[in-house]
Amino acid sequence: MKKSVFYHAGCPVCVSAEQDIIQLIGASHVEVVHLGEDKSRIAEAEKAGIRSVPALVTPNGNVLHINFGASIADVKG
Amino acid sequence: MKKSVFYHAGCPVCVSAEQDIIQLIGASHVEVVHLGEDKSRIAEAEKAGIRSVPALVTPNGNVLHINFGASIADVKG
Repeated sequence: MKKSVFYHAGCPVCVSAEQDIIQLIGASHVEVVHLGEDKSRIAEAEKAGIRSVPALVTPNGNVLHINFGASIADVKG
Repeated sequence: MKKSVFYHAGCPVCVSAEQDIIQLIGASHVEVVHLGEDKSRIAEAEKAGIRSVPALVTPNGNVLHINFGASIADVKG
C-alpha cells in the first residue's frame, strides 16, 4: 500500500499529532516530513493542498489538516 | 486495543474525513458517532475536548480535530 505522508514543522502541536498518527496508522505506513528542516519539500506540500501543519496526506491524495500548529506561510518564514 | 472514536455531524467534510480515517485505521478500530443523529453524546464529545467536527479521539484520549466541518455550537443548533 502507498504510504501516507505526515508533514509537520516541529511545533508542539505537530509532535503530539505525529505520535498519535504513528500510533494509529503504524510507523511503517507513514512517511514523516519535517518542513522546517527540509524546506525543499514545502512546494510539494503546497501542491498537495496543505495550508497548515500538522497535516496528513492519505495514499489517495486527500489532505487531513490535523489540529493547528502553524500555517505554511509561517513555515516558509 | 481500545478503539478510537470519530465524531462527526454528517457534513460533506465529515463524510470525506470519515472515509479517510476508516481506510487508514480500519473500521474495526474506530467507533463512528454522528452527533447530529445522537445528540445525547454531544456532552461526551465536549468533555473529551472536541470543539469542532470532524474529530477523532485517540485511545489515549488525545483529540485530533481534522479539517473543519462545523463547530460543536453549530451541531448543538
